[in-house]
Amino acid sequence: MPNKIRIALDAMGGDHGPEVVVPGAAMAHQRHSDTEFQFFGDTARIEAAMAGVPALKPVSQIIHTDVAIRMDDKPSQALRQGRLKSSMWQAIDAVKQGRADVAVSAGNTGALMAMATVHLRTMAGIDRPAIAAIWPTLRGESVVLDLGATIGADTQHLVDMALMGSAMARILLGIERPTVGLLNIGVEEVKGLDEVREAGQILRERNLPHINYAGFVEGDDIGKGTVDVVVTEGFAGNIALKSAEGTARQLAGFLRTEMKRTVWTRLGYLFARQAFQALRDKLDPDRSNGGVFLGLNGIVIKSHGGASASGFSAAVDIGYQMVRNELMEKIGQALVPEARVVAQLPSETSAAGAAS
Amino acid sequence: MPNKIRIALDAMGGDHGPEVVVPGAAMAHQRHSDTEFQFFGDTARIEAAMAGVPALKPVSQIIHTDVAIRMDDKPSQALRQGRLKSSMWQAIDAVKQGRADVAVSAGNTGALMAMATVHLRTMAGIDRPAIAAIWPTLRGESVVLDLGATIGADTQHLVDMALMGSAMARILLGIERPTVGLLNIGVEEVKGLDEVREAGQILRERNLPHINYAGFVEGDDIGKGTVDVVVTEGFAGNIALKSAEGTARQLAGFLRTEMKRTVWTRLGYLFARQAFQALRDKLDPDRSNGGVFLGLNGIVIKSHGGASASGFSAAVDIGYQMVRNELMEKIGQALVPEARVVAQLPSETSAAGAAS
Repeated sequence: MPNKIRIALDAMGGDHGPEVVVPGAAMAHQRHSDTEFQFFGDTARIEAAMAGVPALKPVSQIIHTDVAIRMDDKPSQALRQGRLKSSMWQAIDAVKQGRADVAVSAGNTGALMAMATVHLRTMAGIDRPAIAAIWPTLRGESVVLDLGATIGADTQHLVDMALMGSAMARILLGIERPTVGLLNIGVEEVKGLDEVREAGQILRERNLPHINYAGFVEGDDIGKGTVDVVVTEGFAGNIALKSAEGTARQLAGFLRTEMKRTVWTRLGYLFARQAFQALRDKLDPDRSNGGVFLGLNGIVIKSHGGASASGFSAAVDIGYQMVRNELMEKIGQALVPEARVVAQLPSETSAAGAAS
Repeated sequence: MPNKIRIALDAMGGDHGPEVVVPGAAMAHQRHSDTEFQFFGDTARIEAAMAGVPALKPVSQIIHTDVAIRMDDKPSQALRQGRLKSSMWQAIDAVKQGRADVAVSAGNTGALMAMATVHLRTMAGIDRPAIAAIWPTLRGESVVLDLGATIGADTQHLVDMALMGSAMARILLGIERPTVGLLNIGVEEVKGLDEVREAGQILRERNLPHINYAGFVEGDDIGKGTVDVVVTEGFAGNIALKSAEGTARQLAGFLRTEMKRTVWTRLGYLFARQAFQALRDKLDPDRSNGGVFLGLNGIVIKSHGGASASGFSAAVDIGYQMVRNELMEKIGQALVPEARVVAQLPSETSAAGAAS
């Protein structure tokens, strides 16, 4: 564990670039003085942005890059044009080379995932990466994954995600054995869910450390906060996230319209302003901004592309927390041989031999 | 088109049975006097419930059944125990035999889908059924399918769902060429979506009647009402629906708590009561209650199991509308040979021959 947490920032990522990334870093630094930053991107723009936050300068390093990945670049395009020389690649490379503990980018998700996977590679024993997010619930917060790193998941990938998600939840929620649920649909005996059922069986039957398996959960359990960790494959996970975001915006829109409709409702709004502000804070995507890439040899955080400085600082905070609380080590602890679907456990074999 | 719409009701379905089904039917009959009902279930309970709604009696027939499918019966169990003799099967059978135009049940979805599929069978040219629902949006209403009839979808099934969903949207929205979107995730070039891409290509390139193909949409487009018809496979569709429902309940819960917090917010609530009532109405699951089973040789409507009489009447209304506006005929019109993925079009072949 380094004394300082060294954070590599893709300064050109997101809709706004350095104008958001730099003040965002400054906010995070104010909360966590044990941070150091490496900004990758256009030196002139980064320096200009840094003029407004002088406290950041002594803990910052600027590494100039000429190439920036665009928000609408396809992953393959990004890799072709941005490999080695883009700010995004360089930030990931800093993690790869051990010069930084975590990389944070608000750049496009597909490109970031592609570059991170190509450059950092998946951890030993993990076949595919996953994107995990913090989901505000009625009960507090839950970890939900995968939000779209890959589509479809076999049994092993679902089990791996349960392990990785619980490692992340241990940090976020400060509990040793987070409850884990597998996302499923209520209609029983529908064909096609063999891998979800199999994963459930493994999580239930093998006594895995740091996992309190709670069974299947449905889409509405996410918002309820029924479990600490919700595991699903990336297509359904992404749809669930977007569908929930859409619904939140839709209801906020309905409510806004209704509150403006009559003198009485407008008056009511004035009195209850505080309550609406609290609701807005709850809904604020900035608050829980930051998708964590899991399963790679290094920590990469994806900030929402449209995030404000405060939103970006939340993503930096998550990166900080993950490093400070040893996410990689915790994932390593979780990846026990018992969690292999096709278990070839020397200990079991010898135990069986001894018993016979 | 019959003069009267004949509606077969599984009186024992749902959490409440005849005590909800019978008054629900009465409400629907009040709105649509050209309805007739066949109630399948326990005669004594149905008659007792009917005592409260005398106007229903002259247009109703009671067919006694001894067996009721329980809400937690597995589909296979339901088929074993309820085939032929259950109220659910009998209601479906009335459609099969042409004695009713539509069957409505608040019984368990899996059992209802299994029985309907086994007994009615899929339409010629349709491999798998789908469940479609009406989703309230910022713009009005959309049709979303599949909500969990089957898991996974090949290209042809996605195209078929676009055709069937647009037939349903023509009735609901009264427009000849509803816009259709395929649900997808924003991360481009992720592997595993070949069938969604292929379906998109077919919908775009072939000039299908009654479909205005609008491309891919994401989870948050559902609530926005970006398109009239959203098509996806059943697992993701079910997760999207439940995730949206969960979010709606979560936000309503947050708001309720916040409004009670101080004297000022309570006062605000009093003034703005009307706005909150309007929001509650919008969120009311009763209003848009009723899943339509598509792709079978007959119309079956699934009401929410916990629906009130008013909610059940909404499901009956949907069944009424689907029959009155000739859903089956409209689906038939939509199933043109050009919509076959592996197109063996005699007209194309001969056209090509003429051109060469």
